[in-house]
Amino acid sequence: MSTTRLVVIGGDAAGMSAAAKVRREDPQREIVVLERSPHTSYSACGMPYLIAGMVESAGLLIARTPEKFREKYNIDARIQHEVTELDLNGQRVRVSHLESGKEVWEPYDQLLIATGAEAFLPQLSGSESDGIFGLSTLASGLRVQQFMDKEQPRRAVVVGGGYIGLEMAEALIRRGLQVSLVERGEQVMGTLDPDMGAMVSDALREIGVTLYLQESLVGYESAHGRVTGVVTDQRTLPAELVIVGLGTRPNTALAATAGITLGEKGSIRVNPRMQTSAPGVWAAGDCAESFHLVSRRSFHVALGTVANKQGTVAGINLAGGYATFPGVVGTAVSKICKYEVARTGLMEREIRDLGLLYNTATIESKTRAGYYPGAGSITVKLLAEQGSDRLLGGQIVGLEGAAKRIDVLATAITAGMTVQQVTDLDLSYAPPFSPVWDPVQTAARQLLAVNR
Amino acid sequence: MSTTRLVVIGGDAAGMSAAAKVRREDPQREIVVLERSPHTSYSACGMPYLIAGMVESAGLLIARTPEKFREKYNIDARIQHEVTELDLNGQRVRVSHLESGKEVWEPYDQLLIATGAEAFLPQLSGSESDGIFGLSTLASGLRVQQFMDKEQPRRAVVVGGGYIGLEMAEALIRRGLQVSLVERGEQVMGTLDPDMGAMVSDALREIGVTLYLQESLVGYESAHGRVTGVVTDQRTLPAELVIVGLGTRPNTALAATAGITLGEKGSIRVNPRMQTSAPGVWAAGDCAESFHLVSRRSFHVALGTVANKQGTVAGINLAGGYATFPGVVGTAVSKICKYEVARTGLMEREIRDLGLLYNTATIESKTRAGYYPGAGSITVKLLAEQGSDRLLGGQIVGLEGAAKRIDVLATAITAGMTVQQVTDLDLSYAPPFSPVWDPVQTAARQLLAVNR
Repeated sequence: MSTTRLVVIGGDAAGMSAAAKVRREDPQREIVVLERSPHTSYSACGMPYLIAGMVESAGLLIARTPEKFREKYNIDARIQHEVTELDLNGQRVRVSHLESGKEVWEPYDQLLIATGAEAFLPQLSGSESDGIFGLSTLASGLRVQQFMDKEQPRRAVVVGGGYIGLEMAEALIRRGLQVSLVERGEQVMGTLDPDMGAMVSDALREIGVTLYLQESLVGYESAHGRVTGVVTDQRTLPAELVIVGLGTRPNTALAATAGITLGEKGSIRVNPRMQTSAPGVWAAGDCAESFHLVSRRSFHVALGTVANKQGTVAGINLAGGYATFPGVVGTAVSKICKYEVARTGLMEREIRDLGLLYNTATIESKTRAGYYPGAGSITVKLLAEQGSDRLLGGQIVGLEGAAKRIDVLATAITAGMTVQQVTDLDLSYAPPFSPVWDPVQTAARQLLAVNR
Repeated sequence: MSTTRLVVIGGDAAGMSAAAKVRREDPQREIVVLERSPHTSYSACGMPYLIAGMVESAGLLIARTPEKFREKYNIDARIQHEVTELDLNGQRVRVSHLESGKEVWEPYDQLLIATGAEAFLPQLSGSESDGIFGLSTLASGLRVQQFMDKEQPRRAVVVGGGYIGLEMAEALIRRGLQVSLVERGEQVMGTLDPDMGAMVSDALREIGVTLYLQESLVGYESAHGRVTGVVTDQRTLPAELVIVGLGTRPNTALAATAGITLGEKGSIRVNPRMQTSAPGVWAAGDCAESFHLVSRRSFHVALGTVANKQGTVAGINLAGGYATFPGVVGTAVSKICKYEVARTGLMEREIRDLGLLYNTATIESKTRAGYYPGAGSITVKLLAEQGSDRLLGGQIVGLEGAAKRIDVLATAITAGMTVQQVTDLDLSYAPPFSPVWDPVQTAARQLLAVNR
């Protein structure tokens, strides 16, 4: 086992979880990690808080540096090393050292592709101008921070009302900018049903974000190479800073060019052990496909939780063990202005797309006993299949203490529970934490009444 | 159906949940509720916060008054009516009106016993003195409040380190009293394993509670009919106020005298539909037995959550429907000083009593991403069966945001999940809410390593 050489492309969550797991199982294995950016094992999710000034320094977002991996784990983690070609027959990768420009071929016995995902920046008129940023790597976050420190922009436009877009809109308001947000959909937070998303839209307006809903990005205006405005299908919004939050795309050009099979949204198709179509080649993290346990279909999601799990599974298998990644149920959470916002399972549109019939119930309750200081409002929406009564999805928007309740629903959905079974759950209650019926159970009770 | 007369004994959570459910199903049914105390549908769990001064008035603890039940639900809710005898053959109960002293027999077609539980006050030398209180009904809480307002006690002793005892110790510290606490066990919070309970003991000491652990109540000293001290097997502690928190006992004398079968800890034995051994007689709430879904044994627990669920199930059945109460997994939560404290499933002693072999893992983590403002410490302990890897129990002690995570474990235990399955759960993550591995999953990962 220890005579094989493992090469990992990508040094963030998935790649480093896998590398560390292999090292724990096999102290002798040669492990080389090739990372294009200057950072390993960082929290990309922390960037909005760094930019908002809530986190003091970028160093705090880095869990482990390349030095630490080298010293503590004996992992040869090389930053600023970009893999530019993958030779499956020759079992080797071509690596470009970004500082020196030197290129070499590195041989491997096992290869893990953990190249992540990249912010999607559509090619439009003016899109090459300075001041337009996507956010994916830590390096991209630092570029935004440096731009803001140097250029002191006053007006920002955020394009796209997903998690990153909304977190960034709030961060920029905190930094004192005028912020507009352009979203194609009926409401922001398109991973919620519009009735729930509307609450989030209102919360953004409350802190001063100007929303332009059902409006699409067309291009940019610029002067002297710098962005000066965002052009939508309805108006031009002046801006010195533009954040494009239109989702991410898996970084899979390398794999595709080598002939490795792709799947959902261009992610690398893997089996539950995280093996790709190419012998000896594995994939994990934002570049790899997942499986959705509710729709029972292939699914792609770029989230740190999934990347860590897939990386761990790949690591166990690469070390000669046996592990599988069963899949996801579509759980996500975010803090947007005053609200905690969470979702799991399927939303209405996704259920309709599967051709299933469903009932929904939405309730308002409190995060604590009504008489206990600090009790805040919480809205819970549940969706269940007609007939079977199986819980299909849940959405929560509420004040402090609301969001983490989504994990109960994620667990119940994973277990295939019915709405009745959720009602029966022995959930915790004390006045500082919940009404006597937890809001998720109040919603389940309401849905039971609908289902009859 | 609507020609039958339903009599409910007890007007708190279980009785009123049942009565309201029957009313919703059957607008014509005659429903009489007989409640001994002056209050209906109140939150007994709120009393410590009322006494602490965190809740302004007792009225806030009352969800619905008898007037509201009469007007809005057409339920004949009679307060200060005590049932003194149960005549099963004659299908009638003898009722004493506590104000007038008048006694009448009330006939029933269906009877629901929802008489609750009472604080256990052992009969010891001096135990009849003024200033010694148990806490169960709202009235008992108000007696403590009135005593404190009138007598202005300076020194209090709390006997018993369970939920009520600890919440009251903290409440009395808030009110400026000197507080000592006597607990027979090795640590307070005997529903946690001692290693976890030790953290809670420390938190109590931090706010100024003097703990006397592994010490037992022997009796009381008094002068002029008033308590002056608590005598333990090791010392005498001066006190003008004594709170006895030695648990509760189901109020089942009435049922037992009538020949109804009792079960665990003297609670009324019921089937999953909440029927007792006597035809036409049902029971629900703190006076009724439950079933423990992990030990698969009869179990008694006095909690508002269970009372509400059992009451609802009884109500559906009393109205001619069909519902069952599957049971509990032993979930409980409390806020004790700086800590949120929660448990579910079985603790070490309970697992040993069942003759099962188990492994445990205890981890320390954070309630949020380490770099996010307000990240607090959280300790999670998990217990799993050897071999099967089935999750048997979980305990959490931590700062704000820690406790409600117990619900994920309660749900996983209910679903019969293994530790591996908990590790695989798609739980929510964003920096304001959790590290990328939620602490319950970090504990599960640790336990996986132990189990191998």
